[in-house]
Amino acid sequence: MARVLAPSELTAVVNTGDDFEHWGLTVCPDLDTCMYTLAELSDEVRGWGLRDETFNARDAVRRLGGADWFALGDRDLGTHLVRTEALRADDTLTAVTARLCDRLGVHVSLLPMCDAPRRTVIDTFELGALPFQEWLVKHGAPAVQAVRFVGELGATSQVHEAIERADLIVIGPSNPYVSIDPILSLEGVRQRVARKRVIAVSPIVAGRAIKGPLADMIRTLAGKEPGVLAIAEHYRELLSGFVVERGDEDTALDMPVLATETVMRDVDARVKLAREVLTFAESLP
Amino acid sequence: MARVLAPSELTAVVNTGDDFEHWGLTVCPDLDTCMYTLAELSDEVRGWGLRDETFNARDAVRRLGGADWFALGDRDLGTHLVRTEALRADDTLTAVTARLCDRLGVHVSLLPMCDAPRRTVIDTFELGALPFQEWLVKHGAPAVQAVRFVGELGATSQVHEAIERADLIVIGPSNPYVSIDPILSLEGVRQRVARKRVIAVSPIVAGRAIKGPLADMIRTLAGKEPGVLAIAEHYRELLSGFVVERGDEDTALDMPVLATETVMRDVDARVKLAREVLTFAESLP
Repeated sequence: MARVLAPSELTAVVNTGDDFEHWGLTVCPDLDTCMYTLAELSDEVRGWGLRDETFNARDAVRRLGGADWFALGDRDLGTHLVRTEALRADDTLTAVTARLCDRLGVHVSLLPMCDAPRRTVIDTFELGALPFQEWLVKHGAPAVQAVRFVGELGATSQVHEAIERADLIVIGPSNPYVSIDPILSLEGVRQRVARKRVIAVSPIVAGRAIKGPLADMIRTLAGKEPGVLAIAEHYRELLSGFVVERGDEDTALDMPVLATETVMRDVDARVKLAREVLTFAESLP
Repeated sequence: MARVLAPSELTAVVNTGDDFEHWGLTVCPDLDTCMYTLAELSDEVRGWGLRDETFNARDAVRRLGGADWFALGDRDLGTHLVRTEALRADDTLTAVTARLCDRLGVHVSLLPMCDAPRRTVIDTFELGALPFQEWLVKHGAPAVQAVRFVGELGATSQVHEAIERADLIVIGPSNPYVSIDPILSLEGVRQRVARKRVIAVSPIVAGRAIKGPLADMIRTLAGKEPGVLAIAEHYRELLSGFVVERGDEDTALDMPVLATETVMRDVDARVKLAREVLTFAESLP
């Protein structure tokens, strides 16, 4: 989207439910993934973090007996150090994110959903309640009984304003339960989003999740078969249109549907899908 | 000394007046230099920090607009991260230092002089009052008008016990004003040390400091010519004996003096001097 729209035309509202404290630092995995991707600094091969990264601090922490289950790279640490120091000096997460983006040449507006912590807690059958990253990274995403959000209830004023201003809201092909719901569950957000033209891109393709444990979560949390219908039902009245993989068109989807290639294997595929989503949006009543 | 004595025979009491907060982390330069040296991990060529160090976090902090005047290496960061997290969880500096030493295989007892912050402040003619590291590293040690210590008044109980237990106290060839005085100025320390057999090794050789701005500080702070006499007068009644460079024997030194090679260019020279200091101590009345 950032390659198709001018920076002033695009705002990304990002889940902060994954945020956590590690080595005493505030780590915001989704926010940083967006920021590094927009700065074209992310490691596309590894799938997370920065390119040309080293892990010498992590090795030292391990040797000294610290927690080593979540690898923060040395370059990545710069972000967490600068951010944590700013937050301790009473900067807001929104303000420090804007400053970091500016330094990295990211001109798209990148908005954390909240300034105060709102943390996603995963209730598992096996290990009880786990903070999100412990569930995902430390324990390898064991089966989920329920997803809860703890802490801050309200989105920032910047998020509310961005929604008010928006001509179109695109819900990316992320996990609805743990990446999108944390945002939609904030006070007033779902209602405000519902008044807008909203298009979701399905994170389920041919009955399977592109990555992560979403398929199993649909079975357990919604009691449904993983598929585009389950996703559409999850977002219900929010959607003005729905983008699914070619072949996933389902006649039971009672809304405008664009069937195309949604699996984005490279930048060209992303740009193509972004254009198609925008054209599809313009075609909607 | 650690190569000449068994670990149980040696305790190092270390200045923490240089400690400061950098990137939100508690950094203890003297403590870490001792720890890394004892662990045989220090960079002997650079003269500070760890061998095989990288500075990718510092480069990232710089890019993000953070303070970059003090270079913390990536491996070194592991120490500061683990320590800062432990201190925030109400561990004492003494306890976390012992744990870090244990993980690094350091069996000599390494004691910070204080658990609470006691910070060395340098009053300069040019720039007013500066925290120690800003004075030394950020501003390149501008001329000193006075040295002050701010904060905690008392040494730890472990330091007092180590002094009580000691057969011999050796004051290393460090800067008396900013490396030794911070310790001696703690409540009761100077008096307790004075009851012991104490040997100092002169940090001044042939009228010049081995490194750093000590010679100028002697002129300004003591109003004396830099030399072994000025050092001996600084420690006064504490000293049972004094170790100086061959050629620096001064007939005005009214105490037992050992003149030998005190400039330690390699490990062999350190071991030789350590043995000579211990033999000299045994010869004292």
